[in-house]
Amino acid sequence: METSKHHIEPAAGRLGVLTVGLGAVASTVIAGVELIRRGLAEPVGSLAQMGTIRLGKRTEGRVPLIRDFVPLAGIDQLVFGAWDPISDTAYEAALKCGVLDRYSHIEPVAAELKEIEPMPAVFDQNYVRRLDGNNVKSKANKLELAEAVRKDIRDFKAANSCDRLVVIWCASTEIFIEPGPAHESLAALEAAMEANDESVPPSMIYAYAALKEGVPFINGAPNLTTDVPAMIELANETGVPVCGKDFKSGQTLLKTVLAPMLKARMLGLEGWYSTNILGNRDGEVLEDPDSFRSKEVTKLGVLEHVLQPDLYPELYGNFHHKVRINYYPPRGDNKEGWDNIDIFGWLGYPMQIKVNFLCRDSILAAPLALDLVLFTDLAARAGLKGVQEWLSFYFKSPQHAPSLYPEHDLFIQQTKLKNTLRWLMGEEQITHLGHEYYED
Amino acid sequence: METSKHHIEPAAGRLGVLTVGLGAVASTVIAGVELIRRGLAEPVGSLAQMGTIRLGKRTEGRVPLIRDFVPLAGIDQLVFGAWDPISDTAYEAALKCGVLDRYSHIEPVAAELKEIEPMPAVFDQNYVRRLDGNNVKSKANKLELAEAVRKDIRDFKAANSCDRLVVIWCASTEIFIEPGPAHESLAALEAAMEANDESVPPSMIYAYAALKEGVPFINGAPNLTTDVPAMIELANETGVPVCGKDFKSGQTLLKTVLAPMLKARMLGLEGWYSTNILGNRDGEVLEDPDSFRSKEVTKLGVLEHVLQPDLYPELYGNFHHKVRINYYPPRGDNKEGWDNIDIFGWLGYPMQIKVNFLCRDSILAAPLALDLVLFTDLAARAGLKGVQEWLSFYFKSPQHAPSLYPEHDLFIQQTKLKNTLRWLMGEEQITHLGHEYYED
Amino acid sequence: METSKHHIEPAAGRLGVLTVGLGAVASTVIAGVELIRRGLAEPVGSLAQMGTIRLGKRTEGRVPLIRDFVPLAGIDQLVFGAWDPISDTAYEAALKCGVLDRYSHIEPVAAELKEIEPMPAVFDQNYVRRLDGNNVKSKANKLELAEAVRKDIRDFKAANSCDRLVVIWCASTEIFIEPGPAHESLAALEAAMEANDESVPPSMIYAYAALKEGVPFINGAPNLTTDVPAMIELANETGVPVCGKDFKSGQTLLKTVLAPMLKARMLGLEGWYSTNILGNRDGEVLEDPDSFRSKEVTKLGVLEHVLQPDLYPELYGNFHHKVRINYYPPRGDNKEGWDNIDIFGWLGYPMQIKVNFLCRDSILAAPLALDLVLFTDLAARAGLKGVQEWLSFYFKSPQHAPSLYPEHDLFIQQTKLKNTLRWLMGEEQITHLGHEYYED
Amino acid sequence: METSKHHIEPAAGRLGVLTVGLGAVASTVIAGVELIRRGLAEPVGSLAQMGTIRLGKRTEGRVPLIRDFVPLAGIDQLVFGAWDPISDTAYEAALKCGVLDRYSHIEPVAAELKEIEPMPAVFDQNYVRRLDGNNVKSKANKLELAEAVRKDIRDFKAANSCDRLVVIWCASTEIFIEPGPAHESLAALEAAMEANDESVPPSMIYAYAALKEGVPFINGAPNLTTDVPAMIELANETGVPVCGKDFKSGQTLLKTVLAPMLKARMLGLEGWYSTNILGNRDGEVLEDPDSFRSKEVTKLGVLEHVLQPDLYPELYGNFHHKVRINYYPPRGDNKEGWDNIDIFGWLGYPMQIKVNFLCRDSILAAPLALDLVLFTDLAARAGLKGVQEWLSFYFKSPQHAPSLYPEHDLFIQQTKLKNTLRWLMGEEQITHLGHEYYED
Repeated sequence: METSKHHIEPAAGRLGVLTVGLGAVASTVIAGVELIRRGLAEPVGSLAQMGTIRLGKRTEGRVPLIRDFVPLAGIDQLVFGAWDPISDTAYEAALKCGVLDRYSHIEPVAAELKEIEPMPAVFDQNYVRRLDGNNVKSKANKLELAEAVRKDIRDFKAANSCDRLVVIWCASTEIFIEPGPAHESLAALEAAMEANDESVPPSMIYAYAALKEGVPFINGAPNLTTDVPAMIELANETGVPVCGKDFKSGQTLLKTVLAPMLKARMLGLEGWYSTNILGNRDGEVLEDPDSFRSKEVTKLGVLEHVLQPDLYPELYGNFHHKVRINYYPPRGDNKEGWDNIDIFGWLGYPMQIKVNFLCRDSILAAPLALDLVLFTDLAARAGLKGVQEWLSFYFKSPQHAPSLYPEHDLFIQQTKLKNTLRWLMGEEQITHLGHEYYED
Repeated sequence: METSKHHIEPAAGRLGVLTVGLGAVASTVIAGVELIRRGLAEPVGSLAQMGTIRLGKRTEGRVPLIRDFVPLAGIDQLVFGAWDPISDTAYEAALKCGVLDRYSHIEPVAAELKEIEPMPAVFDQNYVRRLDGNNVKSKANKLELAEAVRKDIRDFKAANSCDRLVVIWCASTEIFIEPGPAHESLAALEAAMEANDESVPPSMIYAYAALKEGVPFINGAPNLTTDVPAMIELANETGVPVCGKDFKSGQTLLKTVLAPMLKARMLGLEGWYSTNILGNRDGEVLEDPDSFRSKEVTKLGVLEHVLQPDLYPELYGNFHHKVRINYYPPRGDNKEGWDNIDIFGWLGYPMQIKVNFLCRDSILAAPLALDLVLFTDLAARAGLKGVQEWLSFYFKSPQHAPSLYPEHDLFIQQTKLKNTLRWLMGEEQITHLGHEYYED
Repeated sequence: METSKHHIEPAAGRLGVLTVGLGAVASTVIAGVELIRRGLAEPVGSLAQMGTIRLGKRTEGRVPLIRDFVPLAGIDQLVFGAWDPISDTAYEAALKCGVLDRYSHIEPVAAELKEIEPMPAVFDQNYVRRLDGNNVKSKANKLELAEAVRKDIRDFKAANSCDRLVVIWCASTEIFIEPGPAHESLAALEAAMEANDESVPPSMIYAYAALKEGVPFINGAPNLTTDVPAMIELANETGVPVCGKDFKSGQTLLKTVLAPMLKARMLGLEGWYSTNILGNRDGEVLEDPDSFRSKEVTKLGVLEHVLQPDLYPELYGNFHHKVRINYYPPRGDNKEGWDNIDIFGWLGYPMQIKVNFLCRDSILAAPLALDLVLFTDLAARAGLKGVQEWLSFYFKSPQHAPSLYPEHDLFIQQTKLKNTLRWLMGEEQITHLGHEYYED
Repeated sequence: METSKHHIEPAAGRLGVLTVGLGAVASTVIAGVELIRRGLAEPVGSLAQMGTIRLGKRTEGRVPLIRDFVPLAGIDQLVFGAWDPISDTAYEAALKCGVLDRYSHIEPVAAELKEIEPMPAVFDQNYVRRLDGNNVKSKANKLELAEAVRKDIRDFKAANSCDRLVVIWCASTEIFIEPGPAHESLAALEAAMEANDESVPPSMIYAYAALKEGVPFINGAPNLTTDVPAMIELANETGVPVCGKDFKSGQTLLKTVLAPMLKARMLGLEGWYSTNILGNRDGEVLEDPDSFRSKEVTKLGVLEHVLQPDLYPELYGNFHHKVRINYYPPRGDNKEGWDNIDIFGWLGYPMQIKVNFLCRDSILAAPLALDLVLFTDLAARAGLKGVQEWLSFYFKSPQHAPSLYPEHDLFIQQTKLKNTLRWLMGEEQITHLGHEYYED
């Protein structure tokens, strides 16, 4: 059993959180954190805030809160900033996106939200076609844009007396980009940025800037961003953690729970049809086939990896998987998924599981963003650099070491996360073996 | 890491499988095994037959079939027998219950199915009110009935040249019985049986007989049966494994996957409404409120244990959980579940998950029965006696050591099962920590 | 073609509306009417307010609003009063029942709602077991209770300077009562009331009082009330209209649309399983099996009458129909229905229709109550007395002439309602024949 | 009341039915008719065969079968023929399309099905891109193709000693074509055919040929075909009936029932999202965006016409309507629809109706095809020529007189159909007024 206690720097001082994008997700996180600070709401959905962790044997009864077990930054230590091409404050953004109830959840923290004005964004409509904005940086090339972002980061840190920072992507899905030569090494990337190469989207400019400043970067969208050798090289060089891609919030969350159930029970899969309706800005952006392509790739990959068709050709060698997203304004931010799962059991008899998930996009994403900020900051203080595979739990398409396959099964991801916390703190790994309870 | 290799007797010779009840589940198992033997069908749904197990690190690529990794009895070594109050052969039972397609899955093995004629049953309509039958044993008291069952077991073993036997309950749900004084010790149980005490239902007579004969007993229904101190005492005395209760096949399977998902993500639960419609004999029996009570208890307990309301009062301290079963003949054996799950997330916002499971009762149960037969026989050969908590994976209400709570989370159950197999064979436990892939 | 113009008294002066019960439905109606008066909301769901009626041929383009076509009382002419065993004002009731948004729909009309204080009710817990209250009349016998109600009616009329009144039952479902000798004639009914016979529930006392006062009575619950010969005798004697039973608002509304579709297309029915979850006071009352029995009878009868199993034995001679209602507090007033409909088509092939209706009980009922008030008052002014079959459109179990069967098909009901309005106003009946458009 | 009895020629002799396309629908119709003839199945879904019609007052009890009331051709008088670009017989087609159970419904009529070999088709992949075939006519131009089809019709009539014929389109959806100058008059159409103009798809060639031969034409797909002035001119000239477009079988059937319900109850509509999954040839064809466009247009128009947004701008002036069709092979011919309907009621409160229809495409379409054949033949014998609006009941996009709007409401369509039958036979129109039951 692995039990070596790690050295972890204490979570002292203020932790700056810079969100790329100040829309539905970011404003929901920020308003929520302010409400929680005042005791006006619970951080429901946050494992870091509400979760516990079992230590030792079942009969020991040691089940502390995670935030009492590992040295996380506290809610009160967070300071927020943002970039956005639209110049609405967090207050205006929260009102417009229609996620939170105005009287219960926006007005009580209006003063704090109004103070958050977005810095000019690195934005280019070629990468997100359905959006527009005029709060935008203008520079000669992408390297200079990155320098401007680095300056924003340093300025924010100084102005807010932060001890540490985290940058998190909470903005729209960019168009699909294949990894190419420009992404192979840090040198190639920098050259491409200087040359204004189209293979470098805005998200890479932010990530590059953050990593250069020694600030961890979290990727909440399916964009390629840090999932290329050049960025890993940079993260390892500057010694900072990165993680991504794409918050696993709704339909894919369910998929990574139901597919493992099928595999656990060796039930075959003939087809899985997933459709989504949503009416928010994200839905509008995803009407662009190129943005949808990015999303589709992360959504489709999940089943392949969980079900291992190569190991189980009779069960999973030949299933049909369709994912559709439809922009449907009546839903607003209240995303709705409908999954139709065609399975087969003993002797091949067909059965169906149909799941209708009436969820809320930003409500599901907000606590993931908070947890990732806190855990990535922990990782940084514990000296964990580069890809944080143990945070796969939060992502649709988890980054991982090149020699490995991604882990999509939510419960393996959870075990990995919790056993990593135990390992960091020098506690025994939990294996659920438990034969000792039955021995004389 | 625990890695001691156990001594396990080889799986030589014939393994007799005696089913209590020769209805939909038993006939589906038996017909299926015969078809699989002939290569006419795949054992879909059987972890023991189709499942693999990862050994060592992810990069090692060691992923054998479970049946190649642990010494299980082979499909060809099984011999079936049964008790039932209705004297239909397995062939007649299969035709009547309408689970299998006549031309594809019954006629090809008709000869084998016709040979299986049920032995007279221990049956008492006071415990299963909606059924009746005349293929029934008649004796002065319950101890004598048990002796008659013991003789059946010995006769079957001799007549079929079996090396080992397993008894598995595949019959209807008995009325709800509270554990009482008669169940406290083996002596009390035997006295109650002799006195024809009503606290001893038929299922206990079968279990007692099996355990006295040194034969493992598997309880596929929610009946109390072996889940009392008297039976554990007897099992430990004769050194045989027991496990139960109630095959986890449909709606509860989903529940033990979705509830852990909610907990993993710290999503609150306001209510869970589950309704079922089914039209088979089981549905008819469960129209009797006393039989339903047995089922309801095992179905309701699941959420309480998975969600730990004591640890998470804000999230799970006050949810409404309803379970309904309706006898609805149009469905036949094709059970259908509809679950409506009211959850809440960040800042308390409500969301809903609705699951419609169009399943097949016996098709889901059959591979569980097969796996339990094979794994319980393995346990017996490995010297594991008494409660087999590592088989919790298969049960709605898993038996466990008195000092523990039951594990309902399907993925913890799966980890427990697989790590137990690794432990039996001297392989390392899997913890999913995996930090080593990221270290220089 | 029938086109005789009726004499209809003008809708002059104030129309008093007395609701029996001041709970969710009544407070939702009253608040809504006040909001609509102020132009703060639309009377969505009200055929009388928003509906149109086609007159003459399709090419004529004559499609007036119904309220412009027939002389209905105007929204501004309504005055509300109520009885309830709980002494909450309409304002308190609206807040407690949780139907309307406080800030948008209650506070703007708070003053008006606070003025409506319920008169003491005729209440007896033997008929509605899950409720209690102390704003209750106490008299020697049921006839005296009726006299007290009559006095309330006269007093209200005088105090509010009303020209006409309507009484409408918006209270809970009473226990199931079979029609008996006490209901056979007016004389028998009055004798029973004097003798405090248990066959006379509170609802009959209200109806008797209203009819004696020459005030129309509308029955929004499945209670027997006016659906007995004694009441029809009285209504005919005093020349007032009556109608009922049970607002057809949610699941049954859908049923009387989908069943006619099946019959229109000659699709067979094997089974129809309906379950409901709701968390309001109505749900709580219906947990009492005797109250549920009343509701179940009105809900079950619908299919039998629409599908005519005697005419179509191969299609509808043998279907299974189950209706379940479950009290499930997370839903509050937001009732949810789930229907599973097993049909069969060409050569007998089975198909399924599943309908999930996330509705709101009182929101659906409120406009029906408003329409019934307005149309019943119209009927009274047009000299239509006794059963108003043309208002079947609004009821789960429409009262009808003894020689007839009830019409449940929503579209036949709608045609009947609209053709009755045309007939009252001397317009031609619409038959949808329309061959003339295709003739030279 | 209109009650003039029409002259109708008797249904003597044999009625030839020529299907364009010998795929799932056609083979299901033909096999079904053969089974019904032998008493091996019921014509479930056929109004013409199983439906009744009420005559006179409710108390008269006159409710004959439609087929006993109007002089329809009998099942035994039908003779089938077909065209198809694939040369499979009806037997091979039935086996391949997987609609019918082989042992119960194909083999018993195998001999009859094998005899039906398709005549070479008029086929052009430019109009149906996902199909191919080599049983195809080749001629210099489209007029010559029409002449070849006319010869087929005459030859079939002679060879089978038919007294009358009907041609019915049961083939795939062609690409979307806008009505243009070539469709304005018969002369223009013939010129375009001679010029091989691309505005004349194969379906028009068949229709032209049928009408020229004096044979009624029924259009079961959304293709333009007879819905242009040129074809109506021709139909009127030769005195034959035409009707279409697109069998109303599944999701649209439900839509034209649920939308009228909303309007009947003045419930507002915010959005309607419809998705379909199906795995048959039709699904494959509709993967082509141009074919889908044809289907989408007929599917989308329905709500607009039923809900009359111009009359009800507050309720229906601004709803979002999306229709999606996804090719999903696991479903086969078992189409599945999922509709999500966002409605609002009293004071604007939102509610949702979700409908999941697990249907069977060809099983629903087959009885419509049979009824249309029988009723169109009746129309021909009754001297009704040109558009048969009274058959709107069967179509997604009913053809109608230029001065009118289409009637989509299933129940208005049904009333129109039945009142037309009453009118043809000199019976009184039914208006559902029925005030006379309540008069002294």
